[in-house]
Amino acid sequence: MSKIDVAIIGASGYTGGELMRLLINHPKVNIKYVTSRKNEGVDVSALHPNLEDVDLQFSNPEPTQVDADVVFSALPHGASMKLVPQFLDNGSKVIDLSGDFRFSDPKVYEKWYNIEHIHPELEAVFGLPEINRELIKDADLIANPGCFPTGAILSSLPIVENELVDRIVIDSKTGVSGAGVNPSQTTHYPVCADNIKPYAIASHRHTPEIREQLHNFGSGDVKVSFTPHLVPVTRGILTTNHSFLKDDVSAEDVYNLYAEYYKDEPFTQVLKDNKLPLLASVRGSNNCQIGAISVDDVGQLVVIAAIDNLVKGASGQAIQNMNIMFGFDEKDGLRNAGLFP
Amino acid sequence: MSKIDVAIIGASGYTGGELMRLLINHPKVNIKYVTSRKNEGVDVSALHPNLEDVDLQFSNPEPTQVDADVVFSALPHGASMKLVPQFLDNGSKVIDLSGDFRFSDPKVYEKWYNIEHIHPELEAVFGLPEINRELIKDADLIANPGCFPTGAILSSLPIVENELVDRIVIDSKTGVSGAGVNPSQTTHYPVCADNIKPYAIASHRHTPEIREQLHNFGSGDVKVSFTPHLVPVTRGILTTNHSFLKDDVSAEDVYNLYAEYYKDEPFTQVLKDNKLPLLASVRGSNNCQIGAISVDDVGQLVVIAAIDNLVKGASGQAIQNMNIMFGFDEKDGLRNAGLFP
Amino acid sequence: MSKIDVAIIGASGYTGGELMRLLINHPKVNIKYVTSRKNEGVDVSALHPNLEDVDLQFSNPEPTQVDADVVFSALPHGASMKLVPQFLDNGSKVIDLSGDFRFSDPKVYEKWYNIEHIHPELEAVFGLPEINRELIKDADLIANPGCFPTGAILSSLPIVENELVDRIVIDSKTGVSGAGVNPSQTTHYPVCADNIKPYAIASHRHTPEIREQLHNFGSGDVKVSFTPHLVPVTRGILTTNHSFLKDDVSAEDVYNLYAEYYKDEPFTQVLKDNKLPLLASVRGSNNCQIGAISVDDVGQLVVIAAIDNLVKGASGQAIQNMNIMFGFDEKDGLRNAGLFP
Amino acid sequence: MSKIDVAIIGASGYTGGELMRLLINHPKVNIKYVTSRKNEGVDVSALHPNLEDVDLQFSNPEPTQVDADVVFSALPHGASMKLVPQFLDNGSKVIDLSGDFRFSDPKVYEKWYNIEHIHPELEAVFGLPEINRELIKDADLIANPGCFPTGAILSSLPIVENELVDRIVIDSKTGVSGAGVNPSQTTHYPVCADNIKPYAIASHRHTPEIREQLHNFGSGDVKVSFTPHLVPVTRGILTTNHSFLKDDVSAEDVYNLYAEYYKDEPFTQVLKDNKLPLLASVRGSNNCQIGAISVDDVGQLVVIAAIDNLVKGASGQAIQNMNIMFGFDEKDGLRNAGLFP
Repeated sequence: MSKIDVAIIGASGYTGGELMRLLINHPKVNIKYVTSRKNEGVDVSALHPNLEDVDLQFSNPEPTQVDADVVFSALPHGASMKLVPQFLDNGSKVIDLSGDFRFSDPKVYEKWYNIEHIHPELEAVFGLPEINRELIKDADLIANPGCFPTGAILSSLPIVENELVDRIVIDSKTGVSGAGVNPSQTTHYPVCADNIKPYAIASHRHTPEIREQLHNFGSGDVKVSFTPHLVPVTRGILTTNHSFLKDDVSAEDVYNLYAEYYKDEPFTQVLKDNKLPLLASVRGSNNCQIGAISVDDVGQLVVIAAIDNLVKGASGQAIQNMNIMFGFDEKDGLRNAGLFP
Repeated sequence: MSKIDVAIIGASGYTGGELMRLLINHPKVNIKYVTSRKNEGVDVSALHPNLEDVDLQFSNPEPTQVDADVVFSALPHGASMKLVPQFLDNGSKVIDLSGDFRFSDPKVYEKWYNIEHIHPELEAVFGLPEINRELIKDADLIANPGCFPTGAILSSLPIVENELVDRIVIDSKTGVSGAGVNPSQTTHYPVCADNIKPYAIASHRHTPEIREQLHNFGSGDVKVSFTPHLVPVTRGILTTNHSFLKDDVSAEDVYNLYAEYYKDEPFTQVLKDNKLPLLASVRGSNNCQIGAISVDDVGQLVVIAAIDNLVKGASGQAIQNMNIMFGFDEKDGLRNAGLFP
Repeated sequence: MSKIDVAIIGASGYTGGELMRLLINHPKVNIKYVTSRKNEGVDVSALHPNLEDVDLQFSNPEPTQVDADVVFSALPHGASMKLVPQFLDNGSKVIDLSGDFRFSDPKVYEKWYNIEHIHPELEAVFGLPEINRELIKDADLIANPGCFPTGAILSSLPIVENELVDRIVIDSKTGVSGAGVNPSQTTHYPVCADNIKPYAIASHRHTPEIREQLHNFGSGDVKVSFTPHLVPVTRGILTTNHSFLKDDVSAEDVYNLYAEYYKDEPFTQVLKDNKLPLLASVRGSNNCQIGAISVDDVGQLVVIAAIDNLVKGASGQAIQNMNIMFGFDEKDGLRNAGLFP
Repeated sequence: MSKIDVAIIGASGYTGGELMRLLINHPKVNIKYVTSRKNEGVDVSALHPNLEDVDLQFSNPEPTQVDADVVFSALPHGASMKLVPQFLDNGSKVIDLSGDFRFSDPKVYEKWYNIEHIHPELEAVFGLPEINRELIKDADLIANPGCFPTGAILSSLPIVENELVDRIVIDSKTGVSGAGVNPSQTTHYPVCADNIKPYAIASHRHTPEIREQLHNFGSGDVKVSFTPHLVPVTRGILTTNHSFLKDDVSAEDVYNLYAEYYKDEPFTQVLKDNKLPLLASVRGSNNCQIGAISVDDVGQLVVIAAIDNLVKGASGQAIQNMNIMFGFDEKDGLRNAGLFP
């Protein structure tokens, strides 16, 4: 059986490394390019020490010369939008892991990212399969969702679509790999360990991304607030979704709603019996666990979701999108269970 | 200058150890008893290895024989209420670190703790100096606040008293020492590390404690929800306080309100210039840091508070109460700065 | 192609969970039994939350009724030797992960494990493929090596076989999953985090296991000391192998010796260019990384080895042994790269 | 009682912060200067968030203008030696925390630090009170010991002085605060957590410092090797001291030797009853715990020592030296117990 050729553009960071970790065992993929401007000619294992026996070197091809069936762009926002049109012109399908094509209105992008959008004409499909599976099948350009939005949206969809709530408070806790590969005071071990850092309160760029997607459902006007925290964990985002029920609905009813909503999803698991979604359960896997659904005596609903920020929150979801685009089994390359303990 | 005699009842756990750690350097205190039924005659350093050169042994006196100016009861709830009346009869002042005397209505206690209250006649002062300093001065029995309520209440008081909000969502993140000294699956390192565990959602016992105190302020009917999470940190509680402004108020106005409210407090610090309260800043100290006050574009106010759960959240606050009760400088024994990094 | 039937006896612990995590994706294996006396009828995901979508329940068959091509015994030492003969009688091949059959002389076992050996007549092959690949092919009973011995032996073999040293000091650092699934004071997060615990100094049971294997090489009398430390890491053993060169040999010469020795090994990687073996590089994989080979100016040689204690140190190596025994590709089921970061 | 004036030069890093943390509560000290070239005028709490209520700002005085009874130089090596002579000329006593004055032979310094020594004429006392208390009393310039050497020397002294061994292998495990305040790939949380990094094998600068001190004792020719490891801990150095007994000596005899040797030391504690020295026991305190003394059946002696690298391994020991130099109680400012848990 022939394999498709894959390019990973900007492969020196954590999402690039994660794409390689998963794709080296994908049965239908040939990794043709892994690019890095700064590391041309270097073995990938020099930056990704877990890939010691993977025989790949970083290259630095001209964008016009990238000849691949699918291009994963793991470049930073701003940089990605400059190259994506060329890859599309080359005839590749493109899955962009940056924020550049996630908004239907480029003005929203420009406001929150503070960068001019130079390709507002390009239309992308927001690559959350739980929402857009059919559109993804035929898409040429996928905007792969942000890590926080993946957990926030999946934990909210059923109650928003069914108009059970009018305000949602997302309190997210992320592992430090979400800060990327470059060290800083924030990620310095003596500062980061045994500590919790709330950040970008009321101002995080993932806020409008969550809002745009949720406003496509239900009455379209649910109020969404988002507050991220950095916790001393390497991988994972735990989303605590607080909302306020408009009517008297039991936790069991809400559970049944979620279970039904996601019953055919290959990776989104609604946990029975009040089982807790845990970062430790999804570590390294493409699963999203949802559960611990509770209602208190003042009408607050809590829903918990757990993902691995680098997998379902980034590279794994990108591969899931690729599988859908090319008609592969959606689980190909993504069958590994989480690493517990 | 003469010193007061102190008894620590139930000194084998973390709050007992912490009382010793702080009191051994208190200028006006003589530690007369540190009790443990299971460890009679054992050096305290056998259980608290940081106290290697402290020459104290656990004893197991009859409650009637405990002759001390002040008794700290670090017993579990349920056990504490059995002994506290005797200590009062002996003429001691009592600071109880359990939940037994925190509620004005014993029925609330019985409902949430699922234990019959055998001394409903005893009245205690809720030992949060920021609320009750004057009452504490003359109290014989102090109900030392719970760890979560300390952060939750201090982060809420100014907005509740001023009726700026009608609903508060407390999303708390606690270090594992809050689970106490006894090991369990939950606190097993391979499970607990690199993980986050939400727990007791919509059912935690600290919920009614937070509510009772806050209902004494403002209109008395603010709706309070509380969700705790266990994070891989040894010490500290970070409280993320989400509320919803009834009117259009700026973050700066809210900041000024908090700064004014706590300006004379010796341990509650309102941080300027959007500085972040961090567990790493208060580790081992009796400080409560409040800050990062923000308002988003859908009217959500966020206030962050950080405490060390074993100090301001337990033993340090107990000593602060003792200092107030005996007319000592409120900072005596509590002057050490946090341990950073 | 038909698959072999596998039984995992004692599947509730970490090595049992790890066997399942890896075997569910093994192309030639059908998991027929996963047993647990205490958890009969329970979904495996109740204990192994990473296996949420694995449709397996614990069973509790009579040993005589276990009909499998290969039995992995993940029982504790002492318990395992009672059942292994029955599995062999049933016609199964057996891979025993306990210490029960690791010693050629049962008296050594009895001395260090303080248990009478009730089946001294059974002969097992020590299942370290790097030593015994040919014997493993035809074995009916494999004694899967201990976690510490795997790193200790692999880091020592070339210098012992070539008689370069006469004394070896193994200073090992293990992750906490090595302590197993049951919580204790030692593994209690507040004690274990931000701490290091040396233990069983001069008395650990893995000492004679390391010695027996190494005494089969070279002059047979190398002096081996072993000191383990528990470090706040979930997975992995870093072995620091200190030895003393009898003659003047350069680090480069020693490196070349190791590179040649292991050049055909599928999982033991000798790292070039002074790259450091790291736990983070092998996490979740069956790789053993060896490197950082150095000689100081007083004749001390240092060799570093890194493994995941639950994979190459236990369940992965057991699967590697199974692959050899059944003529499968030695990497089947073990192709996943380490999880970094 | 009058207080002495103290200057802390280079106070922006961890050792500077730690000096402040401890000295703000020292009864006989007035902190007159805390200097930082880059942070002139900034509140110390901007860099040391645990010092929120400490009213000190960084200044940047001309070295000639520093008028203090004692100067702590917390500058990097190389930078320190340029300023120390000026502070001495000003009439201050100087305690230098860098490596610049730790060697009697400047050529050793130049070889291992690869820097020309511009003040070889200055003689300093190596500030390890357990060795040099009498000399420290009259010294004008103290070379405060390195963090690793403190643990290595204290764990070795009795056996070297008594010539029980002729080779010592120091295998040290350090917390990440030892790497200082500046972030790097090595200290990046996702790399550093759940990992162990051996480094500078056979080449660490603390090797000659350990050797010079130990060669002053016994026969003067003990062979010392040193291998450091970075472990995911914020504070602390655990020293595993492996040596080889020349004669048949029991662990009990060695224990008695250590207990006697350090019996009058205020901070060096030899633990009875095989108690384990632990980082968690000394965290934040100036104590050095020594214990777990064991002898195996091939003549290897193991001694374990635990210190906090920032306290007994740096700033606390510097204050201990100051107390000795000025005739204060040696424990002044250093009475706080370790922070456990």
